[in-house]
Amino acid sequence: MTSRTLAQGIVDRIAQLAQHSEEPGVVTRRYLSDAHRRAADLLSGWMRQAGMATRLDAVGSVRGRYEAERPDAPTLLIGSHIDSVRDAGHFDGNLGVLMGVTAAQHFRDAGRRLPFSLEVVGFGDEEGSRFPTTLSGSRAIAGHYDPAILEEQDKAGITRRDALTAFGCDIGAISREACDPRKTLAYLEVHIEQGPVLEAQNLPVGVVTGINGARRGRVTVEGAAAHAGTTPMNLRRDALAAAVEMIATVERVARGTPDLVATVGQLDLHPGAVNTVPGRVTFSLDIRSPRDHDRDAAVSALRSEFSHIARTREVTADFTFHHSAAAAPCGQRLIDALAGCVRHAGIKPHLLPSGAGHDAMAFHGVIPFGMLFVRSAGGVSHHSAEFTSLEDIEIAAKVLIGFLESFEPASFSRPR
Amino acid sequence: MTSRTLAQGIVDRIAQLAQHSEEPGVVTRRYLSDAHRRAADLLSGWMRQAGMATRLDAVGSVRGRYEAERPDAPTLLIGSHIDSVRDAGHFDGNLGVLMGVTAAQHFRDAGRRLPFSLEVVGFGDEEGSRFPTTLSGSRAIAGHYDPAILEEQDKAGITRRDALTAFGCDIGAISREACDPRKTLAYLEVHIEQGPVLEAQNLPVGVVTGINGARRGRVTVEGAAAHAGTTPMNLRRDALAAAVEMIATVERVARGTPDLVATVGQLDLHPGAVNTVPGRVTFSLDIRSPRDHDRDAAVSALRSEFSHIARTREVTADFTFHHSAAAAPCGQRLIDALAGCVRHAGIKPHLLPSGAGHDAMAFHGVIPFGMLFVRSAGGVSHHSAEFTSLEDIEIAAKVLIGFLESFEPASFSRPR
Repeated sequence: MTSRTLAQGIVDRIAQLAQHSEEPGVVTRRYLSDAHRRAADLLSGWMRQAGMATRLDAVGSVRGRYEAERPDAPTLLIGSHIDSVRDAGHFDGNLGVLMGVTAAQHFRDAGRRLPFSLEVVGFGDEEGSRFPTTLSGSRAIAGHYDPAILEEQDKAGITRRDALTAFGCDIGAISREACDPRKTLAYLEVHIEQGPVLEAQNLPVGVVTGINGARRGRVTVEGAAAHAGTTPMNLRRDALAAAVEMIATVERVARGTPDLVATVGQLDLHPGAVNTVPGRVTFSLDIRSPRDHDRDAAVSALRSEFSHIARTREVTADFTFHHSAAAAPCGQRLIDALAGCVRHAGIKPHLLPSGAGHDAMAFHGVIPFGMLFVRSAGGVSHHSAEFTSLEDIEIAAKVLIGFLESFEPASFSRPR
Repeated sequence: MTSRTLAQGIVDRIAQLAQHSEEPGVVTRRYLSDAHRRAADLLSGWMRQAGMATRLDAVGSVRGRYEAERPDAPTLLIGSHIDSVRDAGHFDGNLGVLMGVTAAQHFRDAGRRLPFSLEVVGFGDEEGSRFPTTLSGSRAIAGHYDPAILEEQDKAGITRRDALTAFGCDIGAISREACDPRKTLAYLEVHIEQGPVLEAQNLPVGVVTGINGARRGRVTVEGAAAHAGTTPMNLRRDALAAAVEMIATVERVARGTPDLVATVGQLDLHPGAVNTVPGRVTFSLDIRSPRDHDRDAAVSALRSEFSHIARTREVTADFTFHHSAAAAPCGQRLIDALAGCVRHAGIKPHLLPSGAGHDAMAFHGVIPFGMLFVRSAGGVSHHSAEFTSLEDIEIAAKVLIGFLESFEPASFSRPR
């Protein structure tokens, strides 16, 4: 089967998966929904066609296993997710799962076993569009599923526990899903980039260096509301003028730090009248970097600059964080191997961090993980306009198969 | 009667007026309401005690006339308003009306007539808290009342026409309220500053140079919404980052122009998610200056800077104005005369523009007008905390009486 035929098969299956939705006309496939069930059944069938033994695991992930040439060989995991946000695109998650299935099918069709078992996983809880916690499927395999999340409720008041039971999952077996890191080589994920970098570089694929750590916070600036007509500029304690200076600083600090991104996506001001100097402004701050020390240095710099701006303008600034996640670097051997395969496919290997979270990050500190990004048209994701071309999918499939063909478990020696 | 006794009388009457409200516990006295009627009746009684002939005019203003020593003498108008915003302070408007009544009473008590008739006016439609158009009382006397506003409706659907009729006003007589500019010397208004300047200068009163012209507009910045994690800083077209640079420019331009104030009081961004780079930002812009050419130069400078920022950041900026009012300078002879009286009272004469609108501006281009500002504690107005001290009121009363004693109509020769 040619690589073009393989890629066309992936595109066809992506279209079939897109038909399974909770809402007509758009793709909405939340964790443990009926649509998720139908997509899981479809995926299991494709896995069996590819010569894999399949099962639905204790947290609803679809697992397909293509056994190695020898029974005691270690396992390589390939995965991504089949759940979606509301009104999602077709490629997010699904592409990576089908890449794994297609790779297994390629080796089965060639009558070839590998020196490791290939386990393809279709996770069901990556987007967090139903319950507060996310990545529960990959966390179960990584061995750090928190049983407390079983009590989480969705908007309809249904607990995760009840939803899992209704889906046919055995909650008592969750802890037994944990992989044995001594027998699990690595986790690999192919995913659309969901950003504009590869398009700007005119490249079909890129090798991920790590998943950015993130801190999210909120800044509240308190000045004094005042009449816009009667208060001279020099007697104002304008909360917006101070916030504006702080937001400009956010951009300057981010631009001065390689790979770091910082975003102010929300801003509210009070009292919010045309003829009143704002007395209070709150704004959100989202800072991400593949290197935690860069991110923390940026936060320190901003804290210091914000204090200085507040003092100068006789306002107060309160800066609190409510979310923090450490960066999860990809395994260096996997980065190197993937970059080699990209080069072998005649493509310049471009390394880039992942700004969004992925199932891969659940394996941080457990087994090495690697990711291959595929170009997203316009950088668009979480939207019906999400698109990745057949040509780019073909190149990604070639890189993945090349990686699996050249991957030698023996050389992947521990300690990593 | 000592000046302290006069001031105490004003303070007592301000407290009495504050009892007439549409809402219990707060002062709310909208145009042509029952509370307005009761306040008007109270004011008329005080005018009669001060030896004035009173009437309610065709648009609901209370008019009190203290005749000159000679029947053919010209008239000097003194006025302010007795209507209020919702949940208002006690001093806004009322202080100026009672200043005029108290001045007449002072001369009546002294058995003294002036070389001009003194007409004190308590306007009822300054705040615009009921109908869309405002200053209708002063516009009627200035001779440019627009009959089209009779069809305006309040929130309950009552037209201005019906409200006036129910108040006992003769709509057919509105045009006859216009003063004869050849026989009307000037319009004078005492008003609380409603701003922080006199307090910052540690002065009880100040002489107004003019009422600021204003332009109000809205700026819309269109960039591109993008994922906060996956979009590197150099590939963003962040509408908020552009808006922030523009708002910083607004402050810089305003600070560089004497007496000009510019305010961004509203800002909305879309889509407004913590993890999304803003794609569109709209913000309000309010620019005021006592000199129209300064204000227009600032607008031109901002327009040019906004275009430059938009080009540099590859966003678009749309800058539209929906309100424009020319500055209304006070009469120079009145400024000089009031400043002389302030100096005579032992106070440094401080000149300042008025950032807020007042009935006085309705006389722009018709007769000269002058204004005396009295210190507002904390610069606060349109709030129950609004306060002006007995001591400051006493000084303002002295200045007004001094002005009236020294004012010579003959020297106030035309053309002005």
